[in-house]
Amino acid sequence: MRIAVTKDELRVGVVGAGRMGADHVERLAHHILRARVSAVVDIDLSRAAGVARKVPGAESFASLEEMLAADTVDAVVLATPGFLHEEALLTLVEAGVPVLCEKPLTPDPDSSLRVMKAEAASGSQLIQVGFMRRFDAGYRQLKRIIDSGEYGKLLMLHLQHRNPSTPPGFTNEMIINDSVVHEFDAVRFFTDSEITSVHVRIGRVSSLAAAGIQDPQHVTVQTSSGLLADVEIFCSAQFGYQVYAQATFERGLVKIGDGAELEITSEGRKGTAVDPGFVTRFRHAYDIEVQDWIDAVHQGGIAGPSAWDGYATAACCAAGVASQRGEGIVDVKLVPRPSFYS
Amino acid sequence: MRIAVTKDELRVGVVGAGRMGADHVERLAHHILRARVSAVVDIDLSRAAGVARKVPGAESFASLEEMLAADTVDAVVLATPGFLHEEALLTLVEAGVPVLCEKPLTPDPDSSLRVMKAEAASGSQLIQVGFMRRFDAGYRQLKRIIDSGEYGKLLMLHLQHRNPSTPPGFTNEMIINDSVVHEFDAVRFFTDSEITSVHVRIGRVSSLAAAGIQDPQHVTVQTSSGLLADVEIFCSAQFGYQVYAQATFERGLVKIGDGAELEITSEGRKGTAVDPGFVTRFRHAYDIEVQDWIDAVHQGGIAGPSAWDGYATAACCAAGVASQRGEGIVDVKLVPRPSFYS
Amino acid sequence: MRIAVTKDELRVGVVGAGRMGADHVERLAHHILRARVSAVVDIDLSRAAGVARKVPGAESFASLEEMLAADTVDAVVLATPGFLHEEALLTLVEAGVPVLCEKPLTPDPDSSLRVMKAEAASGSQLIQVGFMRRFDAGYRQLKRIIDSGEYGKLLMLHLQHRNPSTPPGFTNEMIINDSVVHEFDAVRFFTDSEITSVHVRIGRVSSLAAAGIQDPQHVTVQTSSGLLADVEIFCSAQFGYQVYAQATFERGLVKIGDGAELEITSEGRKGTAVDPGFVTRFRHAYDIEVQDWIDAVHQGGIAGPSAWDGYATAACCAAGVASQRGEGIVDVKLVPRPSFYS
Amino acid sequence: MRIAVTKDELRVGVVGAGRMGADHVERLAHHILRARVSAVVDIDLSRAAGVARKVPGAESFASLEEMLAADTVDAVVLATPGFLHEEALLTLVEAGVPVLCEKPLTPDPDSSLRVMKAEAASGSQLIQVGFMRRFDAGYRQLKRIIDSGEYGKLLMLHLQHRNPSTPPGFTNEMIINDSVVHEFDAVRFFTDSEITSVHVRIGRVSSLAAAGIQDPQHVTVQTSSGLLADVEIFCSAQFGYQVYAQATFERGLVKIGDGAELEITSEGRKGTAVDPGFVTRFRHAYDIEVQDWIDAVHQGGIAGPSAWDGYATAACCAAGVASQRGEGIVDVKLVPRPSFYS
Repeated sequence: MRIAVTKDELRVGVVGAGRMGADHVERLAHHILRARVSAVVDIDLSRAAGVARKVPGAESFASLEEMLAADTVDAVVLATPGFLHEEALLTLVEAGVPVLCEKPLTPDPDSSLRVMKAEAASGSQLIQVGFMRRFDAGYRQLKRIIDSGEYGKLLMLHLQHRNPSTPPGFTNEMIINDSVVHEFDAVRFFTDSEITSVHVRIGRVSSLAAAGIQDPQHVTVQTSSGLLADVEIFCSAQFGYQVYAQATFERGLVKIGDGAELEITSEGRKGTAVDPGFVTRFRHAYDIEVQDWIDAVHQGGIAGPSAWDGYATAACCAAGVASQRGEGIVDVKLVPRPSFYS
Repeated sequence: MRIAVTKDELRVGVVGAGRMGADHVERLAHHILRARVSAVVDIDLSRAAGVARKVPGAESFASLEEMLAADTVDAVVLATPGFLHEEALLTLVEAGVPVLCEKPLTPDPDSSLRVMKAEAASGSQLIQVGFMRRFDAGYRQLKRIIDSGEYGKLLMLHLQHRNPSTPPGFTNEMIINDSVVHEFDAVRFFTDSEITSVHVRIGRVSSLAAAGIQDPQHVTVQTSSGLLADVEIFCSAQFGYQVYAQATFERGLVKIGDGAELEITSEGRKGTAVDPGFVTRFRHAYDIEVQDWIDAVHQGGIAGPSAWDGYATAACCAAGVASQRGEGIVDVKLVPRPSFYS
Repeated sequence: MRIAVTKDELRVGVVGAGRMGADHVERLAHHILRARVSAVVDIDLSRAAGVARKVPGAESFASLEEMLAADTVDAVVLATPGFLHEEALLTLVEAGVPVLCEKPLTPDPDSSLRVMKAEAASGSQLIQVGFMRRFDAGYRQLKRIIDSGEYGKLLMLHLQHRNPSTPPGFTNEMIINDSVVHEFDAVRFFTDSEITSVHVRIGRVSSLAAAGIQDPQHVTVQTSSGLLADVEIFCSAQFGYQVYAQATFERGLVKIGDGAELEITSEGRKGTAVDPGFVTRFRHAYDIEVQDWIDAVHQGGIAGPSAWDGYATAACCAAGVASQRGEGIVDVKLVPRPSFYS
Repeated sequence: MRIAVTKDELRVGVVGAGRMGADHVERLAHHILRARVSAVVDIDLSRAAGVARKVPGAESFASLEEMLAADTVDAVVLATPGFLHEEALLTLVEAGVPVLCEKPLTPDPDSSLRVMKAEAASGSQLIQVGFMRRFDAGYRQLKRIIDSGEYGKLLMLHLQHRNPSTPPGFTNEMIINDSVVHEFDAVRFFTDSEITSVHVRIGRVSSLAAAGIQDPQHVTVQTSSGLLADVEIFCSAQFGYQVYAQATFERGLVKIGDGAELEITSEGRKGTAVDPGFVTRFRHAYDIEVQDWIDAVHQGGIAGPSAWDGYATAACCAAGVASQRGEGIVDVKLVPRPSFYS
């Protein structure tokens, strides 16, 4: 692997400049450390160029092969439609390029097997599949609780997944292949075991579902370890996007995604954790504060409370301490606000 | 401003290597783009060195002056105790170095005024004060709602602030100067107006408060725009850290920090927003997924679902689609897991 | 069906046939055991008669004196406007008639003292004041928790009280006399101590408040035992009626009225109790079921699930047990529904 | 105080003096209007007598036949074990006595059919089955929403039912016959249609379940109107009793029993209703207040706030109004509390 910059940075090529690809370009450019977007690929070169233009130093290409030939990437994010994945993955594996492949790996198990064989033959794990839920804070906490055995053995999983509507071109099979696939992976992730059977049932269908879509559907799976999990999938729910999981244990119930990050029911109580301190409560606020400040300093300014705010609050504190000592309602007297701070 | 690296990066010096300072070093090193820690300063040089050691390329110094003399920083995060701020700020302003100053600016309004005058004299805004709550998602949403007038005029603010316990050395005045100061700034932030009076009342005191600490306290402030706000401050609350704000409007009530990020009561209903789509629901998950993957690729591996997971879920999808077409419970048949993926 | 039994019943006269009086008549007639409405009094006799007409056996009178002269009541509910209470209470006390007096006892402390003296002179406690919140399940649970000391000493009370709008004729003083009076009693109830000072502050006023009403207001009281309590009162809140109390303890926080009946924060968790069994979960359902059934039997019918429902669920159970034994999806076969049950 | 009035009251016999029977006796005696317990029957006469003793005027009998022969009942609550129901119901129907029959009607569909035929032959509906959930406020509200079509057509029902533990003698079949039977009826109640198939699946079993109990189980039913509903049943859940229902509509989601009485998700928001006024918010409090007062008056006393409380709050109000007018913190001065009120 070769990295040419002062601070080690991976040069990443994003293949597929549709919605997911463009999101990944934006993410890599603005939220990810130790990487930069060096290439954007799309069969529609103007689309690739439109996305690449937003990132300094990113080139655009009309094919994966052209990008590889230009030797400008250390790793690839693959965000093309699933039916194009097999060919791209085989090419990348052969070139020895690490790839984050948006789900699905490929649209069917046979092609997935071919990709796996090629990867195994290459001798190193180059492919990661984009089941992003495994990185969600709630999912991770639930996984830890399952692994800990804190509430006993996991007995059942109940999953709900709702989208407000289906995009154009969505088919009935895509309810399974594009949406429920996340739940299949979630069950496997939570249980560390494989799914051994799947049962899909369809009852009443929404009149608001697109033509040909039987929505909602109810899916039950069982794992090699005997666990039953069921999924309510509803892709035309109108009212918003919801992903919810409930785990039933021998001595407790844990929910994620329905309001609280993590809600636990055990020993006669149902509730959520209170933050232990300001570091966790305001972690994101600190990150944003410092990032915004850094970016403002790059522009020669600030991006938050000024010295005036520091002064005004110091005056409030002085009044507060006087009042605390028994002076009743204490006036806060400020100098007029200098125009410098307006 | 001079930046010496390929990708524009600010060289940041962190002054004060205590808890807050060490947190900022960790943050700058691992979560912030376009910046790197180039120096750590502490009067206790070994403490500075201990923190600096964790960051490649960071030097340690025993004083701000030494650091400035070494010409290694473009900006400074000031995280020393408040009583040391005035001198440091005056030095930094004179040197023309931008500074993110942890609150308070200075411990009293007179010293704050001196700092303001120096900054104004310098001709550019170099000082930002670390009231991090202004960067919290809930605070920002509430501010937007206040500014929008969506529920009419803001009529009242009720604020609650609890810490599990006070650190050693905490004094009764610090309840105001260190804790309520955040609420003073919050009231000013939400209302865009200055506080004109402060009233602190003390009733029953917890037997679990440290010696000399009268805890909890009740603080009422009024702003130049007539708004009354009150604060429940309780620094020995034992059960956790909570920061909560409730805004009463002419036609609605908005809460932040008490479970939901934002809870709105209006027109006979009380509730929270549902995510519009997966991009907002899983934004953090995507960021972590990609960052973890980038970091794993740097190490020559992956950090998430493998091609095996892609294959196994493809097999589940195939079974699911067959079941969807009416085949009942459909078995999922997998090849044995190759040792390559175990 | 007509069955004549002897059951001890109080004959109750309701004095004042306005909204509260009519509500009490309805309550006594339909929800209260061991009592019946025997008289309705209103200076507007036709209003009294209109209300009395709905209750078999209730007479109407134009004055309290006429009702007493007719010797038709054992006890009285007094629901006239507060300024008429003193005279009525003195009359009732002299007549030795127990009275449930809607709040306020009287509109000012001097008249209250005169009533108290008359009652004490009579030698028996005849007067109960209608602070109904003391009978609310949440209030009672919070009182028990305060008394138990389970979370340490009670340190602070924060109370919120909102009405959607004020009725015609409402005055600024009535915010205190009619609304905050409930909070005054709540503080006294929770603390078993008297209030020693009251502080009312007015900040921004809603443009939707009626003319002359300064709404919302902020009230702080202190008790003889040192406790500070504060009240947010907002009588023109538009969005609904809310009564909320939060008690801060040395080691916990308890809320009532904001969603859950009782929410407890302690030891790093925030939550609610889970029902211990069906008896508490469905207590009200059982009461309504049996009452509706009794009333239907009086009319010669039933008021709920019929034998058909019993049969149909028995058939479901038979299918369920067969499926439980491994028969997969089992059909439920029912005889055609007899017209008798349609 | 003893008052003899004539009020139509049903004489009710409770048959079966176990837990449910004793509960019904208590309910009829203390919470139900227009009825009284006149007889308690149990094959164990001493158990019947023990329960009857608590209710003035109730006789005890060792059999239904003896009770009927004594001509002391107008209606019967049947609370014996289900296997005894058929014979008792046939006897009661023949005698023309209305009966509230605890579920199940009978343990199997054939015996239920025999009971139905006898009832139909009698010409009048004498039997009501004790599916009490139909009388729960949440169930009723959800039923109204389904019927209204407010959120479009009902598409799916998801039901959860948990008991902390199973009583001695509980069998695996009773999970269906005693617990899920309530859910079967709920589905029928909500949809006004019959269940056409049942599917029970068993996965992992709790090690805390009693011997022979496969717990939890997952039950899926479909109705004649095509609706799919599924039930999570878990009778050894340890942590409490929970009954929860979620209804998915074309444009909304409604939950009951999980915290809020009714939670609605629609149009991008999730929430609960705010009370419109004090009448609904404190309805139960008013009922208890008046009932407690009536019962105290029967004993010659009061059961709530006294005239002293009326006086003390009047003094607070006077101070509050003075403070409201700008007098700052106003002291409340009370006369010493008379011993009469202590």
